Amino acid sequence: MATPGQVITCKAAVAWEPNKPLVIEDVQVAPPQVGEVRIKILFTALCHTDAYTWSGKDPEGLFPCILGHEAAGVVESIGEGVTEVQPGDHVIPCYQAECRECKFCKSGKTNLCGKVRSATGVGVMLSDRKSRFSINGKPIYHFMGTSTFSQYTVVHDVSVAKIDPKAPLEKVCLLGCGVPTGLGAVWNTAKVESGSIVAIFGLGTVGLAVAEGAKTAGASRIIGIDIDSKKFDTAKKFGVTEFVNPKDHEKPIQQVIVDLTDGGVDYSFECIGNVSVMRAALECCHKGWGTSVIVGVAASGQEISTRPFQLVTGRVWKGTAFGGFKSRSQVPWLVEKYLKKEIKVDEYITHNLTLGEINEAFHLMHEGGCLRCVLKVHE
Amino acid sequence: MATPGQVITCKAAVAWEPNKPLVIEDVQVAPPQVGEVRIKILFTALCHTDAYTWSGKDPEGLFPCILGHEAAGVVESIGEGVTEVQPGDHVIPCYQAECRECKFCKSGKTNLCGKVRSATGVGVMLSDRKSRFSINGKPIYHFMGTSTFSQYTVVHDVSVAKIDPKAPLEKVCLLGCGVPTGLGAVWNTAKVESGSIVAIFGLGTVGLAVAEGAKTAGASRIIGIDIDSKKFDTAKKFGVTEFVNPKDHEKPIQQVIVDLTDGGVDYSFECIGNVSVMRAALECCHKGWGTSVIVGVAASGQEISTRPFQLVTGRVWKGTAFGGFKSRSQVPWLVEKYLKKEIKVDEYITHNLTLGEINEAFHLMHEGGCLRCVLKVHE
Repeated sequence: MATPGQVITCKAAVAWEPNKPLVIEDVQVAPPQVGEVRIKILFTALCHTDAYTWSGKDPEGLFPCILGHEAAGVVESIGEGVTEVQPGDHVIPCYQAECRECKFCKSGKTNLCGKVRSATGVGVMLSDRKSRFSINGKPIYHFMGTSTFSQYTVVHDVSVAKIDPKAPLEKVCLLGCGVPTGLGAVWNTAKVESGSIVAIFGLGTVGLAVAEGAKTAGASRIIGIDIDSKKFDTAKKFGVTEFVNPKDHEKPIQQVIVDLTDGGVDYSFECIGNVSVMRAALECCHKGWGTSVIVGVAASGQEISTRPFQLVTGRVWKGTAFGGFKSRSQVPWLVEKYLKKEIKVDEYITHNLTLGEINEAFHLMHEGGCLRCVLKVHE
Repeated sequence: MATPGQVITCKAAVAWEPNKPLVIEDVQVAPPQVGEVRIKILFTALCHTDAYTWSGKDPEGLFPCILGHEAAGVVESIGEGVTEVQPGDHVIPCYQAECRECKFCKSGKTNLCGKVRSATGVGVMLSDRKSRFSINGKPIYHFMGTSTFSQYTVVHDVSVAKIDPKAPLEKVCLLGCGVPTGLGAVWNTAKVESGSIVAIFGLGTVGLAVAEGAKTAGASRIIGIDIDSKKFDTAKKFGVTEFVNPKDHEKPIQQVIVDLTDGGVDYSFECIGNVSVMRAALECCHKGWGTSVIVGVAASGQEISTRPFQLVTGRVWKGTAFGGFKSRSQVPWLVEKYLKKEIKVDEYITHNLTLGEINEAFHLMHEGGCLRCVLKVHE
């Protein structure tokens, strides 16, 4: 049966309300409108941002919604005016758009395209400010412009990265969020140089990707910091050379790192989303030049602080979103790097489940041994 | 009478205790030891850092001491091992040393030389950790490694910038602190590009030097922010193109600036030392690339804060000390620029008094119309 132009009824995991188990529902997915693309999602991973919004702690979270933003699939159909992808193209939906026309895209200074944000931020599509998802006529909100916990989703064309069809979608779905975020924090935001000393706070997927990025950049020491010492063995495989567990020390962790590095690190990365750790990450940087990059996403309303003296004496405080990568342009490049075995992807996948097991997958995220759990979306 | 090798008794303004008027005393200035230079100070200006320590609010302030760090003079004699200056050389003493040998100097990334800091931070000289100032045998502490409120002072050789003897010392004494701090914040720390939109919080000497730096860098709009609207006329002469008085607005000043600039400024500079203003300066920066530089010195114990989202969405928070200028190498270059009329100096001098009138000069600093007051040190 030809689906283009038709409403598709398919399975999706719906978050009806905060902190309640997701429910696999039959969802109606409307055809793509002007500038939109309907994608058959084949594999999706889970990321902590999904869990954060699901928890209800995100004041901008809208319910009911379909979460998910780290996935891969195949274009099912395209709306009017879409020129850069065709049905059948293999794609990664990107929560960070790239329109190449807005003030941000044209600046050459940032990847934070602004074209569709006013819509994706409130769970709708730009053209008519409505959702393409519904259940018996009741609209279900989009999430991050991606909503990949669904067998079909509709996204803006500026949010679709067309990738090499040779890439295994069950692996490269990870290039939709966590891995690029970590690599790009090192390569694009911090621009770590060869010989640098690097500290990484938090050794989850993003922290490990930072380690890998730092290793390929030629860092001389890569210090991993985590309160779970069991993570060190895995971390070594990603390039971490030393491990510090703050629980093993009475001194503040920033002082421990400063002592360990003759004055502090050249670059630090906070990959947790904890504002106290963000402060420690800044303050363990070397006077005169140390740069700290906030990669983790803190809970709403929380604030970072430090003495201004830390900055006046030469430390720099930055942050990164999607690692500074321009999504449509650079996700395909990352896929190529993966195909050439220049970056790891498979190694982050610790669990494989199905969309129907998504609640179990959320539980797994809180276990130390879980990096990424990839869900098969179609049985 | 030949003074080299002899103790010199001369006039100096002594801060016996916090917040009490300075007293002009006969002070004994010992000869310079290994790696030291004794300078006849001819002109000194006052800066807010002097006032801050004098006030007693600086927990690292030591009394009794001789304050002052923005001055010019002539080398009277040199200690053993000093090779780069000779008696008779015209010099500017620099509170920020440059040894060209330490980890900091060699890094190529910072001007924060570490060689003499352990001594200058506690009011003594490095070689024997003693003061060269005394009154009837009682030691008087040095301040910032400069102590220019004295007819003679002793400084470390790594803290002496030799300048063109054609430069008028009664003017270029300002190149010891405030003017380079502002210019360098723009040129070295922020690296403002042509066409940028700039916001400057606080239109004192440092803020005006930022304006001049931004103008020479080709900024398209230079927005001056101050709670004293009378400062605008002067500010225009230094390059400020628009003026905003936060008192004229009900909205937070960062929102006012964001509204005025279609999303925020490219670069902002805090030139006051107020942690709330530092936050506003960061938050008025444009998403994606806006960079805020802390130039002002906050009171001890105060902290800056913001939501980490501000950084994750691309803003950068930095600081600067002495504008990132390498003192011995670059102060002479600034003097040349002044002689070639490429930078202003005379225009910051609003008052001229004598060392004996120093308490009056401190009072003048709190008046809106006072930028720099230069004291003639010898009658």
